[in-house]
Amino acid sequence: MNIVLIGAGNLATNLGKSLKANGFDVAQVYSRTEESASVLAKLLGCSYTNSFENIAKGADVYFVSLKDSAFAENAKDIVKGREEAMFVHTAGSMSLDTLPCKRRGVFYPMQTFSKNKEVDFKAIPTFIEASSDSDLKLIENVAKTLSNSVYVLGSEDRKYLHLSAVFCCNFANHCFALGEKLLKEHGGVPFEVMLPLIDETARKLHAISPRDGQTGPAARWDTNVMDKQMAMLDENPDMKEIYAMMSKSIHELSSF
Amino acid sequence: MNIVLIGAGNLATNLGKSLKANGFDVAQVYSRTEESASVLAKLLGCSYTNSFENIAKGADVYFVSLKDSAFAENAKDIVKGREEAMFVHTAGSMSLDTLPCKRRGVFYPMQTFSKNKEVDFKAIPTFIEASSDSDLKLIENVAKTLSNSVYVLGSEDRKYLHLSAVFCCNFANHCFALGEKLLKEHGGVPFEVMLPLIDETARKLHAISPRDGQTGPAARWDTNVMDKQMAMLDENPDMKEIYAMMSKSIHELSSF
Repeated sequence: MNIVLIGAGNLATNLGKSLKANGFDVAQVYSRTEESASVLAKLLGCSYTNSFENIAKGADVYFVSLKDSAFAENAKDIVKGREEAMFVHTAGSMSLDTLPCKRRGVFYPMQTFSKNKEVDFKAIPTFIEASSDSDLKLIENVAKTLSNSVYVLGSEDRKYLHLSAVFCCNFANHCFALGEKLLKEHGGVPFEVMLPLIDETARKLHAISPRDGQTGPAARWDTNVMDKQMAMLDENPDMKEIYAMMSKSIHELSSF
Repeated sequence: MNIVLIGAGNLATNLGKSLKANGFDVAQVYSRTEESASVLAKLLGCSYTNSFENIAKGADVYFVSLKDSAFAENAKDIVKGREEAMFVHTAGSMSLDTLPCKRRGVFYPMQTFSKNKEVDFKAIPTFIEASSDSDLKLIENVAKTLSNSVYVLGSEDRKYLHLSAVFCCNFANHCFALGEKLLKEHGGVPFEVMLPLIDETARKLHAISPRDGQTGPAARWDTNVMDKQMAMLDENPDMKEIYAMMSKSIHELSSF
């Protein structure tokens, strides 16, 4: 199977490496900037381009991993002259219909990717969809080679899955970042001391649902502590507002 | 060393078990309700009471693990008749001065505790403080027997450490709970599919700071996706507000 990667960001980089490691033939990489394109192409031992026109014709599958806005703006140029090929995007938030071609697919590996941090693709839940049964089979073959947990999921449910992932990954990670900021500003305790707590918070979810396992001042509705902590955030009005919103929301979720 | 535990909640339960496992003599448990007191006392093989008057006199150390408000209301009754003893509280958010006695200490194991979920006390960063050098030594001996990472930290810095822990543990966990809520409401994908993403989000922090490792729509400032996701939360106004606040805060933190 002959594959072209359109995009060279975190997801494309990890996907490309995993495709190659599993014996797939990645023929070419496109990226808007020549530098990103060449870095990933070198990793994969293939050619690269930074112009839509020069994207190879005749590949079996084109994987599109662009920022959603870049994809929306350029979808027609990406497909042009390759209308018979199969296009597969990797965005959790975009519906299958976004692809302006006949043979459409979605391959959404739900994970947080960084270019320089290896992840085990086998463990990544991967959600797939396609415009025909035969193309679903094709995508499923690729997906099952790369990952041990593959699910067929429609666009509408996938949108909510992706939104859930934004809360579980990006927003949770931002809570860690705000915690780090507080430590930097007060006392200088290194952020590393938080890791056992964070690890246990994640590990606990394997045994108890996050709602049932909640602890802390808002879960106990200990207004004594909450008021004092709000006052400590007077210099950080955004964090103060986040503190108030999150505490209220914890309290409401625990009582419904 | 003869120890009395005042409190029988999640922290007291885990602390009591660890003290006992390390050979300390827990003589008695106090809890407001007879049931909680008896459950923990049975676990530790000691006596119990639900009245402040009947708390044993003459113990070497009294560990106080009550909800902050319960502690504030009852501090005098707890100490009364035991003025010469050493009292140690376990609350991250309370200062050393809160204890109305001469020999005061703090022993704050920074972890999220559930009664039925065993945690490895050895790995818990534990922050200690005391009103005299000799009592600091005493607390340090206990702490170093229980945990491999013990830090001496003053009350003011500990307050911010605890606030940081609220963000890193309780608020992050609430993001997981909100993600779970979305999955329940849409499509019925089981929450378990989020665990690899959450595990990786936590694991990543051992290599990259949360600020530098942030990904997702707000980090890319992909307003296309963000607007669509906000619209998906129209039925959940509180979650919509949290989405907006968190996204704005992610954007601002990445650019300072």
